[in-house]
Amino acid sequence: MTGFVSLVGAGPGDPDLLTLKAARRLGEADLVLYDALVSPGLLDLAPRAQRFFVGKRARKKAVAQETIHWLMVRAARRGKRVVRLKCGDPFVFGRGGEEALALARAGVPFEVVPGVSSAVAAPALAGIPVTHRGLASGFVVVSGHSEKAYAPILDFVAPHSLTVVVLMGLAQRAAIASLLMSRGWRAASTPQSETWTGTLAELASVDPGPDSESAGTLVVGEVLSVAAEIAQKISPPAAVAASHGQK
Amino acid sequence: MTGFVSLVGAGPGDPDLLTLKAARRLGEADLVLYDALVSPGLLDLAPRAQRFFVGKRARKKAVAQETIHWLMVRAARRGKRVVRLKCGDPFVFGRGGEEALALARAGVPFEVVPGVSSAVAAPALAGIPVTHRGLASGFVVVSGHSEKAYAPILDFVAPHSLTVVVLMGLAQRAAIASLLMSRGWRAASTPQSETWTGTLAELASVDPGPDSESAGTLVVGEVLSVAAEIAQKISPPAAVAASHGQK
Repeated sequence: MTGFVSLVGAGPGDPDLLTLKAARRLGEADLVLYDALVSPGLLDLAPRAQRFFVGKRARKKAVAQETIHWLMVRAARRGKRVVRLKCGDPFVFGRGGEEALALARAGVPFEVVPGVSSAVAAPALAGIPVTHRGLASGFVVVSGHSEKAYAPILDFVAPHSLTVVVLMGLAQRAAIASLLMSRGWRAASTPQSETWTGTLAELASVDPGPDSESAGTLVVGEVLSVAAEIAQKISPPAAVAASHGQK
Repeated sequence: MTGFVSLVGAGPGDPDLLTLKAARRLGEADLVLYDALVSPGLLDLAPRAQRFFVGKRARKKAVAQETIHWLMVRAARRGKRVVRLKCGDPFVFGRGGEEALALARAGVPFEVVPGVSSAVAAPALAGIPVTHRGLASGFVVVSGHSEKAYAPILDFVAPHSLTVVVLMGLAQRAAIASLLMSRGWRAASTPQSETWTGTLAELASVDPGPDSESAGTLVVGEVLSVAAEIAQKISPPAAVAASHGQK
């Protein structure tokens, strides 16, 4: 008997933004392998399951990617129903593609359960539409964890042509702001999920507080011009959920 | 007594990819205003509600955007709980930002319930990770409905620097392929949700079948090099769901 692996998107943090399918897969799971930033509330939805934390914790070595592959494959071969629970969407950063490839190569049946990505949800919950008629007819999503990841893309983005969303970009915020300004972006605002809004020039000196050095979402673009008006009136529960947004 | 409006993302089509929060809002709703491409199955989740179709149908005039605003505001002022059900995510195209602004300006309490966007889910369900280590460290999402919407953005995207996702781009597929090739993209593959994969040069002559002239998702980029291997092994229920992916 062979088990089954579900690569499941946990959404942006609020357990309420899990999909119906993801909730059902958790309820049926024998084993859940979960990342950092996955809300503890989500694990309560998997009462039958063994739960392994396989994410990165500050100052501790992360579980090797190959170990995660091995754990999934081994459990599936033993007939287990495995949920690999990933923040946001499984294929938006976070190496979900590599995990899918490893499962395909091992001949283990698997599926992908897309989730609500923070790339769109974190801005939305702060009142920022990533697209808006007359302001942005598209958006680009990059990872801010290293210059190598974002610079080749942001170097080519024409100023004010679309909305720029940077995930995991708080640690590099000064470098990102400087890069965009050198490319001709001017006076663009960049809010955090805790609704800081300002200019690129001010971004470097913002203090996002402890525990938020690398996670968090930056948004740059003309859409910020409508965000303040939307965010002011948006209902508090939704706005609060934005502070969980990670990926 | 004032009601409340929820701008709700319906996800990419499969009712199972609705969020828990969206399902609860539908269950409590007095009025649901829904778009084309929203699955009929989703409306069954709103047994108490009046349901108004406000989307576009082939050869029929669409309900004016201002009329949608007026319907939401009027119902909320009468104390109703209104769900504005939008395909995919409410802030990814589809004028959700304008609806949020209209509600804010009318002083009606509202919230945004993010949904799973087809920009990420349609590729994922076809086995395509929009990001993949070594292949794409970011992605850009554009609307393919008119050249004015996508050309200014795609003109500036450096070839092979990231994944390009075009929503509602099937009708313009020849023009989009030609634009990308003129910008230096070579031999890039473009699969549909029905898993057609080929080169940009071949894209113009593809017949996507009836009813799919304008909706549908195009994906261009290096990530296609892993997609075939993932898609081959991915479990059928997930792959089937991709054919619903719209936004």
